[in-house]
This record gives sequence, C-alpha cells and structure tokens, in this order.
Amino acid sequence: DIIRSLKTLSYPAVLKTRQFGYDGKGQYIIKQQKDIEVALSALGGDQLILEGFIDFDLEISVLVARGQDGSTQCYDPVENKHKNHILDISIAPARVAEEIKKMAVAQATKIVNALEYVGVMAVEFFVSAQNPKLRVNEVAPRVHNSGHWTIEACNTSQFEQHIRAICGLPLGNPDMRGEAVMINLIGDDILQYEELLKDPLANVHHYGKCTIRPGRKMGHVTRVFTEN
Amino acid sequence: DIIRSLKTLSYPAVLKTRQFGYDGKGQYIIKQQKDIEVALSALGGDQLILEGFIDFDLEISVLVARGQDGSTQCYDPVENKHKNHILDISIAPARVAEEIKKMAVAQATKIVNALEYVGVMAVEFFVSAQNPKLRVNEVAPRVHNSGHWTIEACNTSQFEQHIRAICGLPLGNPDMRGEAVMINLIGDDILQYEELLKDPLANVHHYGKCTIRPGRKMGHVTRVFTEN
Repeated sequence: DIIRSLKTLSYPAVLKTRQFGYDGKGQYIIKQQKDIEVALSALGGDQLILEGFIDFDLEISVLVARGQDGSTQCYDPVENKHKNHILDISIAPARVAEEIKKMAVAQATKIVNALEYVGVMAVEFFVSAQNPKLRVNEVAPRVHNSGHWTIEACNTSQFEQHIRAICGLPLGNPDMRGEAVMINLIGDDILQYEELLKDPLANVHHYGKCTIRPGRKMGHVTRVFTEN
Repeated sequence: DIIRSLKTLSYPAVLKTRQFGYDGKGQYIIKQQKDIEVALSALGGDQLILEGFIDFDLEISVLVARGQDGSTQCYDPVENKHKNHILDISIAPARVAEEIKKMAVAQATKIVNALEYVGVMAVEFFVSAQNPKLRVNEVAPRVHNSGHWTIEACNTSQFEQHIRAICGLPLGNPDMRGEAVMINLIGDDILQYEELLKDPLANVHHYGKCTIRPGRKMGHVTRVFTEN
C-alpha cells in the first residue's frame, strides 16, 4: 500500500500513527524507499496514515466554539511557529491578509457546524501564497496550546468558553484586548521561570510538572500589547 | 466609659465589636444616650470600640503588596460605593485628584513598610474636600473585595500578587489594561447570573455558594473598558 501510494504522493511523504500522535511523536518522514522499513518498525502497529508533504508559508489556527444551542464564536486566527515539531510561539492575530482570516474563520465554523460539535475546537491551517491558499492541516477537538494566549488577551478565555459551551451557557465574547505573543517553555526553558516573573509584561504559567524532559511542555508565557 | 467618650466624640457615634466585624455586622450607631443599652445587648461581649462619626465624600482603597525582599507595588486607588454597609460597586481608577491618589499610595506603602508586612493588604481611606483630605478608615491584611477588578483589569491580579509576595517571588506588574467597574452580586442578585453571561463585556464570577441569603456576597461582575 505504501509503495503504491508513494507513486501518487511522491517523496518526501510522512508516515503517521492513526492515534495518540502529538508534537511530532508518532510520525516518520519517508525520503526514499528504504526509509519505509525503518519507519514501520519505529512506528509499530498496523494502522498507519501516509500523507503527502505540503509546501506552505506559515501555519495559523482558529479556536472555534460551538454552544449547545448551535451558536458559534471564533477567536482571531493565530499564527503558529514550531521548533522540532513542537509549538514554539503563537502570535495573535496572525500576520496574514484579512481575506485569509475570514476564510479560515468561515471554514472552522463550517467544520463545527457539520459535526454538530459542542465545545472548543482548534482548526489548524497551512497558509500558502499559491492555491489553495488555505488547507486544513489538523483538527483538535478540545482547548489547544495555540489558544493559551486567550487567557490574558481575550475577554473570555478558551477554557471559560469551553465550559460555557458544554454547560449550555451563552458563549462569551472572544474579542481581543490587545495583540498577544505566547511562547512555550519547553524542557529546560522552565528554568527561566523566576527570571521571567521579573518581566512586567510577562504572564508566566508553570504547569507544576515535577520532571523536566527535553521536548516536554513545562509552561508558557504570554505578553499582551495594548494601546494603554 | 462610653458616656464619658461620647462627650468628646459627640453623637452620632459607632459602637463596634473588636473582632470579626464585616459588611456592617458587629456595629451599632449610637444616636442618643438610650441607644447605648440596646447596642450593648445587641453586640454582646465586653471588648468594644467606640468611634466618632466621620463626614466624608467618598471612600477609596489602595491594594498594596509587599514582598519578602521589602519591595512594594500598589494598584491604582479604587473608589468604593456601599449599599446597606456592604460594598456594592468599585470603580478603578478612583475619580479623585492625582494628588489624592499619590497621597493614598504613599500612606498605604508607609503602613506595609512600618508593619514589615508580607502579602497583599487593602488600605481604605475616607476622602473629604475638607482637611484632612484623606483618613485611613480600615486596614484589611489580605486580598480584598475592592481588589477583585484586578483579575481582569491588571497584568497581575491581587491573588497572583499575594502568592508572589508570600512565596518570595518578584512582585508582578499592577498596571491597568483599562478602566474597570466591579459590581457585587449580593443575595438575589446572583439570579441574574445567566443573563449577565450574555453581556459581552461582563466577566461574571459565581462563588458557588449553595444558599442565597439577603446581604450574602454570592458573586461579582467586572467590566473592563479599553481603548481597543
């Protein structure tokens, strides 16, 4: 199956586990035919997905909420930068054209409506200068790391929004109080914790995980830039 | 003692319990001599304080934090309006002259330094057009209802600030993101809860108390007004 599919997708392609993959875990890049055996033994299992490699300029995501009454609210699309397959920085709002933002919001809304979903969902998009300009790359049916900036930057955070949605309460206002930049504290980054607390602009979050491991999300920092 | 003191303080005066008084509980207004007996039996105990009645224009409070290293940070003075002796509305910043604000901040800072206090303290002042323009009316050595607006309106809330202070971490930035109005939900007010959740500007807090009683603080709402 893999060899046959590679004729259509061509190299490089990405072989992924069907479940429990995150932060680059559960995937393997197939650059040439001999990588297949290595990938199969690395990934294990017999339920895998082979994906073509997409060229894109940047990734954005839309945090969208849908209530029990079918009403929806979207946060401003946020731009995501990764390092070693792990979300590194989110910039809100995303630095893309208004037209792209509107399309992304419309598509995210369409997805939650089609699924009759209730709660907060993150819809990730690859943005490209070529057509299609927007391509859904991943859907996370939950609050999401790329929405952590909403805690300080929005009237209603993604967490409050999710609780409102699943409890059948009216959805809250997702408007932004200012521009926001969220930086993940990964592995040893968390050791900057006390230094960051001195930064008057930094909203520091320490997840309280006892063991530091490389690539482990240990916390994050959000800075909000307002007119005031 | 009371009759003797009333010669100096004159009527009306306020008789108060020494401990556990709040929201107008544990106090009795003495308008004439025959009120004394009633007050004594109402208040009970033998440790009471008699206070003169102060004429004032409005009440403000300063939330001040002092860290283990002796550093201090003050929030903008906030204006407090009461109803039935219970805090009803807080408006931040207080609508008083800059000179008054600076005096209040200086006095609050002096108090926490003199006490070598660590944590967040609320210092309440009566503001008057006559001298003294500012009079300390009450000190609450803790986070305070008149500081709840800091949750949404400030970079660091009074709660985070208190934890930073007592844990020996650097104090956070108390700057405001916008003007704020906090309204207490007292007794039956809490029944407006779901209606308030529809207000896009309202940050609604429900304390989860099971029983509604008149005069009981059941929650609060904060609205922040930014330039954006």
